Amino acid sequence: MKQSVLKFGGTSVGDFNKIKNIAYMLKSRVDNGEQLVVVVSAMGKTTDSLLENISALTSRPKDEHLAMLLTTGEQQTISYLSMVLNDIGVQTKAMTGYQAGIKTVGHHLKSKIAEIDALRFETAFETNDILVVAGFQGVNDHLEITTLGRGGSDTTAVAIAASIDTSCEIYTDVEGVYGTDPRIYKEAKLLNEVSYEEMMEMSALGAGVLESRSVEIAKNYNTPLYLGRTLSNVKGTWIMPQTEILEKKAVTGVALDKHMIHVTLTYPMQNFALLQNLFDALEEQSMNVDMISQIENQQGLQLSFTIKDSEVVQIEQIIESLTEDYPHLRYKMKDNYAKLSVIGTGMRDMSGIASKAFRTLISHDIRFYQTTTSEISISYVVDRDSGETAVRTLSEAFNI
Amino acid sequence: MKQSVLKFGGTSVGDFNKIKNIAYMLKSRVDNGEQLVVVVSAMGKTTDSLLENISALTSRPKDEHLAMLLTTGEQQTISYLSMVLNDIGVQTKAMTGYQAGIKTVGHHLKSKIAEIDALRFETAFETNDILVVAGFQGVNDHLEITTLGRGGSDTTAVAIAASIDTSCEIYTDVEGVYGTDPRIYKEAKLLNEVSYEEMMEMSALGAGVLESRSVEIAKNYNTPLYLGRTLSNVKGTWIMPQTEILEKKAVTGVALDKHMIHVTLTYPMQNFALLQNLFDALEEQSMNVDMISQIENQQGLQLSFTIKDSEVVQIEQIIESLTEDYPHLRYKMKDNYAKLSVIGTGMRDMSGIASKAFRTLISHDIRFYQTTTSEISISYVVDRDSGETAVRTLSEAFNI
Repeated sequence: MKQSVLKFGGTSVGDFNKIKNIAYMLKSRVDNGEQLVVVVSAMGKTTDSLLENISALTSRPKDEHLAMLLTTGEQQTISYLSMVLNDIGVQTKAMTGYQAGIKTVGHHLKSKIAEIDALRFETAFETNDILVVAGFQGVNDHLEITTLGRGGSDTTAVAIAASIDTSCEIYTDVEGVYGTDPRIYKEAKLLNEVSYEEMMEMSALGAGVLESRSVEIAKNYNTPLYLGRTLSNVKGTWIMPQTEILEKKAVTGVALDKHMIHVTLTYPMQNFALLQNLFDALEEQSMNVDMISQIENQQGLQLSFTIKDSEVVQIEQIIESLTEDYPHLRYKMKDNYAKLSVIGTGMRDMSGIASKAFRTLISHDIRFYQTTTSEISISYVVDRDSGETAVRTLSEAFNI
Repeated sequence: MKQSVLKFGGTSVGDFNKIKNIAYMLKSRVDNGEQLVVVVSAMGKTTDSLLENISALTSRPKDEHLAMLLTTGEQQTISYLSMVLNDIGVQTKAMTGYQAGIKTVGHHLKSKIAEIDALRFETAFETNDILVVAGFQGVNDHLEITTLGRGGSDTTAVAIAASIDTSCEIYTDVEGVYGTDPRIYKEAKLLNEVSYEEMMEMSALGAGVLESRSVEIAKNYNTPLYLGRTLSNVKGTWIMPQTEILEKKAVTGVALDKHMIHVTLTYPMQNFALLQNLFDALEEQSMNVDMISQIENQQGLQLSFTIKDSEVVQIEQIIESLTEDYPHLRYKMKDNYAKLSVIGTGMRDMSGIASKAFRTLISHDIRFYQTTTSEISISYVVDRDSGETAVRTLSEAFNI
């Protein structure tokens, strides 16, 4: 029997009517001969209201206790959806992260899935047609409840799909993946197909519809991944292996990340220990550092990189603590920049993409301060103010 | 190190202030060198509001899904209490039923604890001083979440205390166990000590402060059980083995159960198959039948018993279905009766209790329609209207 994994985010299950409508849609798929794993998040504002509750209790909840509290949100959603499905005649089992055999490792609030017990699903499908699984949660080696952090429910869904070797459909409040942000470039096209690699670049670079972690898992297991709007008839986007994509484009997307801080460190002489200490500290804090450029010149060492603006306090702490050992270390942080990226697996085969991109920016007087490239992307640090113009200019040039 | 199990019901943890005050009390006990298991229920009206939510979704939720939903209530309470304890410097671990190793058997919403893994507590106490455990819940052999039904959190607490071989303190909104209901007989005395057997009779017979199941477990494992008011300085009641009670009384309590239905069945001839079928059906529905009297006389078979008035629909269904096979079966149900009981382990040794009780009722013109006795109690079916007068009369006679 055909099996699929579907995932619905917090907005999609935001109220009881939405839950009912989703239930009817799921039933029609079961009636057409499918068995489904349905992964859901906490309803709409549940998580926020739980967080608000604890602000009356403590300003520094222990992470382990917070994970315990927050996971009740998804547990309630799976209960509600299962009740409705059962009511309309679908044999349904609700499963928490633990019951679904989702084992995690790492920090209580930012865990990663280490292992999923596919046998649990196999067994449950013997007597049920739909398994409703709580997203965003798992259980670690000490049997403690953990959450998966940002985009966690997507990760749950993709990891389950990978473990039972089927496809994964992520339903959300966007129609799918666009070549660039339609709010910036209104002619932007909805992509029918995009490769894992391109999607990962777009996720990491701020397109923001899917966390790159989910796409990474899908890529590793060759899991076909769909992104589309909940209960919409518009066809969304399939994210799949590059080899299976029919219409190859040189450039698939243009992404803009305005939530970035550009950091420049200088030190009067080259010092590898300093660099080592810095990167150790960044890794320890699980910080996402990007666009790293390191130059040694007559003034000594110069290192630039970008971080998310939500991590500005952490980076300051890290650098301050480095200056205790390296008193001559100086740094500048700028938040008036944005990161602009041109993405496409076609870059591998087709020459001239980089030069066309540079030419386009220059001819439109868009200044850039740093450039880095990967195999399938070119990224520029530009003035934040000119970011959106740059997106439109490049989208037009590459027919996004 | 001294270990104790404490249990706080839904009213006791009804709001965040109460939770904070309980946390401070717990901390002071830890500071005095104790390690504690703290079992809590869902906060105040949480369960009701969850039930109200689902009324918008379905009128007949599947029990398994309902258990999944309702158990989020306790999971939230353990999170909140743990956060506060951690905040005031107590090393605390929160544990759901599953994490506490509480294995259950039976119906999803009326499960019984089959086994508790004491090792879980031992391990958790190595790095924590308080373990906050979700009451009312467990997990069955299929890893499905179950609830323990009425008084379930008390059962959780007592069973944990039994498994780790320590005492159990139940905190609630009464001062302890009274010889009879102080609302009926205002001179009623708070008992400092009562035996398991007496408490079980009083629980089963409607005194209602503790479910008899909890007392039964305590008795089986010789677990000292305390009942008292949350955060009160008044000394409550210890429930303990009869042999350890210093001051023996002939009669410890007088109980009145007005929530009873008196059922009388008649059949034109003696028929054991009919009786067998009836009791099989009652057992299958887990119904509590009490005060059974069976007489064979010239009119044939006559059977009387009492049931809880909440089970009237079920008993009607059972009897109706019996009349299909036994068309001459007739029955009467009366709810204008009450059950009155005189309880005391002293009855075993001291003669004259029964005759004094009969004499007291008769001399006060209190009619009784049925009498049954156990080793430590005498129960009467009386008119509901005269129930309270009977309680006062007997309480005075036996100095309750």
